[in-house]
Amino acid sequence: MVYTDIATRTYNHNWRLDPIVRSLLDTDFYKLLMLQMVRHLYPHVQATFELINRTRTVRLAEVIDEAELRAQLDHARSLRFGKKELIWLAGNSFYGKAQMFSPDFIAWLADFRLPEYELHRVEGQYELRFEGPWTHTMMWEIPALAIVNELRSRAAMKDRGRFALDVLYARAKAKLWEKVERLSHLPDLVLSDFGTRRRHGFLWQRWCVEALKEGLGSRFIGSSNVLLAMDADLEAIGTNAHELPMVLAALAENEADLREAPYRVLKDWSDHYAGNLRVVLPDAFGTAAFLERAPDWVADWTGFRPDSAPPIEGGEQIIRWWQDKGRDPRTKLLIFSDGMDIDSIEATYRHFHGRVRMSFGWGTNLTNDFRGCAPFDTADLDPISLVCKVVSANGRPAVKLSDNPAKATGDPAEIQRYLRVFGEAGRVAAAVSV
Amino acid sequence: MVYTDIATRTYNHNWRLDPIVRSLLDTDFYKLLMLQMVRHLYPHVQATFELINRTRTVRLAEVIDEAELRAQLDHARSLRFGKKELIWLAGNSFYGKAQMFSPDFIAWLADFRLPEYELHRVEGQYELRFEGPWTHTMMWEIPALAIVNELRSRAAMKDRGRFALDVLYARAKAKLWEKVERLSHLPDLVLSDFGTRRRHGFLWQRWCVEALKEGLGSRFIGSSNVLLAMDADLEAIGTNAHELPMVLAALAENEADLREAPYRVLKDWSDHYAGNLRVVLPDAFGTAAFLERAPDWVADWTGFRPDSAPPIEGGEQIIRWWQDKGRDPRTKLLIFSDGMDIDSIEATYRHFHGRVRMSFGWGTNLTNDFRGCAPFDTADLDPISLVCKVVSANGRPAVKLSDNPAKATGDPAEIQRYLRVFGEAGRVAAAVSV
Repeated sequence: MVYTDIATRTYNHNWRLDPIVRSLLDTDFYKLLMLQMVRHLYPHVQATFELINRTRTVRLAEVIDEAELRAQLDHARSLRFGKKELIWLAGNSFYGKAQMFSPDFIAWLADFRLPEYELHRVEGQYELRFEGPWTHTMMWEIPALAIVNELRSRAAMKDRGRFALDVLYARAKAKLWEKVERLSHLPDLVLSDFGTRRRHGFLWQRWCVEALKEGLGSRFIGSSNVLLAMDADLEAIGTNAHELPMVLAALAENEADLREAPYRVLKDWSDHYAGNLRVVLPDAFGTAAFLERAPDWVADWTGFRPDSAPPIEGGEQIIRWWQDKGRDPRTKLLIFSDGMDIDSIEATYRHFHGRVRMSFGWGTNLTNDFRGCAPFDTADLDPISLVCKVVSANGRPAVKLSDNPAKATGDPAEIQRYLRVFGEAGRVAAAVSV
Repeated sequence: MVYTDIATRTYNHNWRLDPIVRSLLDTDFYKLLMLQMVRHLYPHVQATFELINRTRTVRLAEVIDEAELRAQLDHARSLRFGKKELIWLAGNSFYGKAQMFSPDFIAWLADFRLPEYELHRVEGQYELRFEGPWTHTMMWEIPALAIVNELRSRAAMKDRGRFALDVLYARAKAKLWEKVERLSHLPDLVLSDFGTRRRHGFLWQRWCVEALKEGLGSRFIGSSNVLLAMDADLEAIGTNAHELPMVLAALAENEADLREAPYRVLKDWSDHYAGNLRVVLPDAFGTAAFLERAPDWVADWTGFRPDSAPPIEGGEQIIRWWQDKGRDPRTKLLIFSDGMDIDSIEATYRHFHGRVRMSFGWGTNLTNDFRGCAPFDTADLDPISLVCKVVSANGRPAVKLSDNPAKATGDPAEIQRYLRVFGEAGRVAAAVSV
C-alpha cells in the first residue's frame, strides 16, 4: 500500500512559485559588513549595479523565462529581515567579536527591502540593472546572481525524468565527496564555502555545506552564506569586495584622488573592523600597482585576498612584499578564493604550507560542479561566469581592472584612463571559466 | 517553516518490523516454473534445503541479531499470495505463452504458505534448515537468502548518520550508472536482472531495475523477480535450477539411474515447457560429463546456461558440442549468469558476438555492489557467497559437483561417489566471491 497524504499534496500543488531566495540573510556575509560601513560613511552615494554574463555563448534570455525571472525578483523584493534573523545578527559573535553590528544598524535593517530593478532583453541576454542608493542596490548582487543561476539550472532540468535527476544528484554527491576525501588529507586546511552567488541551487548549496562539515570537521570554518551559517551553527565568513575601491575610485575628483582611492578604502575599513577582518583585496586596479604605492601600514593588516592572479604567483608576490616591508609571512594570512577547485587548492596548500597562514574560499566549483554528472547530454548545467558589478557611482562610470584583463569591467575609454593612472604591470590574461 | 505530518510520523514509529519480504511474489520466476512441475511429478518427495555461507570469514551469527532474523522469517511465513498477484500469474503471458500456469496450480498457490524453519547458531554461523515436502521447502530459497543478506546490510548501516548513508547511496547509484552507460554501448545486448537472492535490499534492487530499464531500454528484457516484473511491467525471466538434477540424482536407486538423472530432468522439463524455457543447466555434475553422454535430442533444446565454468571457455565448449552435433550455434542461445559483472559481460559479449545468441543474467554485482561506496571504512557491505541448497531428498544426501570444485556442495564421501560416476573431466577450481 502506498499512502498519499492528500493534504500535503494539495498544499504543494497550490504553490504559485518555488522561491529561490526565501530570506534576506540568504546573502554573503561581507555584504552586511560593507553595508554597515557604507551606510555610515556614504549614505547618500547613488550606485548602479548591473548583471554581466561573461559567458556570452550562453544566451540567458533564451534559456530563462522572463515571467519566471520577474516573479523570483519580485518575491525577493517582498522579503524583510525576520525577527529571529535580526536577533541572531545582534546577539551572535562574528570573527570573535560580539556586537559586530551596531544596534542602530540592526534597527535600520528591520525596515530594509530590496529596491526596484530594471529588466530588458538585449541580444539574447538579460540586462538587469539596479539603480538607487548604494546602501540598497548593493544588496541585490547576491540574490540576483543566485536567482539567475538557479533559474538556469531549473531550466536545464525541467523536462527530465525523475530517474535522470536521481542519477544527476547521485553523481554530483559522489563527485563532491571525492573532493572532500582528497581535502581531508590536508591536515592544516582552513576552508570556507564561498559558493552562494553561483550555486546550482539553494538546497544543493546546503547539501554541500553539510558535506564539508561532515567530512572536514573543524577544518571547515564556515560559510559566506549568512542564512546557512545561522541554520547550521557555522561561522559566517567574509570581509570586503571590489565594489568599495570601485565606487571610491569612481567618485575621485582627480587622478591623485583616484590613485589614493584603494588606500582610502582600507582606512575606512580599519575604522570599522579589526583583526581577521583586515584583509586587503589588492587587485581592483592591479596588484603590482597597489603594492608599489601601498603605505607601510598596509603591511600591518592581517592578510591579503589575491582574487584574480594565479594563486601561487599571486601569493608569492604578496609574500615578497611582506618580506620587503620586514614582516614575517608566517604570521600573515592569504585567502585564496578565485575559481578554486580541488587541484588548485591542493597545489596551493602544498606550495605555501608552513610559509604563510592560508585560508581557502571555495565557490563555484564547490556549489555548482555538475560537469559530467548528467545522464543526458547537456552543457546547460555547466557553470557560467556571471557577475553583478557596480557600473557607476553618482553618475560616474565605475571600473575594475583586475590582474586578469579578462575580468576587467567598465567602459573601455575609462579602462584606458585607469590603465594610464595605475599602469599595466603584472597583468596577465587567463581564461575565466567561473 | 518545516511542516511535520504528525499522523505519518506516529504511524511510522508504530512499526514493530520493517519487513524485508512483503510478498510471496518477491521470489525468482524459475521457482514458480519448477514448483509447478515438481508438484505435478514429485508431489510426495521430501526435500531439505539449507543455508550455506561459503564466505566463512564472515561470522553471520555475530553480525545478525537472532531475534530480528526470526522476526523476518516469521513474517515471511505469514504471507499468502494476494488475489491481484494470482490474477496476474494466471492472466499474464510468460515467454510469449498464455496460461503458463494451470488453473489447478493457481488454485493450489492460493493456500500456499512457507513451511517451518529450524534455526541454530553453530560456530558463529546460522544453521538455517527447511524440512518438508519439496513443493514447500524449495520456496524458502530466495526469501531466506534475501532476508539474511538484507539483515546483514542493515547491520552494516545501523549506526551510520544520515549524511553517510546519503553519500553511500549516491556513490552506489553513480557506480551502477557507470556500468549501465558502458553496457549501453553494446548494441545487441540482452540482459536481465538475476539479483534477488543476494541483493543489498529490496528497495535497492528496485532502483537497479529502474536504472536498467531507463538506461538500456529494450535491451533490458526483464527481471527474475516476479514482484518487480509485475510492478514495473517487465518480463519475468528464468528457467530452472540445480535442485532438479540434484534431487533426481539423490533419488536414483543405482549408478545407472544416477548417470541418467541429468537427462531425465530435461525430459520432465520438456513435458512442461517449450521454446526459450528449454535451457539446459549442464554443470550440476560437470559439464564435460554431461555433454559426453548427452543424447542427441538435447542439442534440439534452445540453449544452455553454463553456470560455473568461466564464461568464454564454458561457452566455447558448448558451441563445439553443438557443432559436433551438426547444429548451427547462431540459432542457439547461451545464458551467462555466474558472477557476471561489467567487465566479464563486455568481454563475453565481444567474444561471442555474431557467433551465438547470448543473454546475460546479472545478479549479485548488479544488486549488491557497494564496494568502495561507503564514506566509512567497512567490508560489511561487500557481498558474500551465500547459497540455499537442497541437501537431501527423501532422506538421501544431495550433491552438486559443479565445474568449479569451490562451488561443490554435499557430503564429502557422497561427492567422491559422484566423481567416480561422472568423472572429473574439465573441472577447474576458481575463487568464488559471490
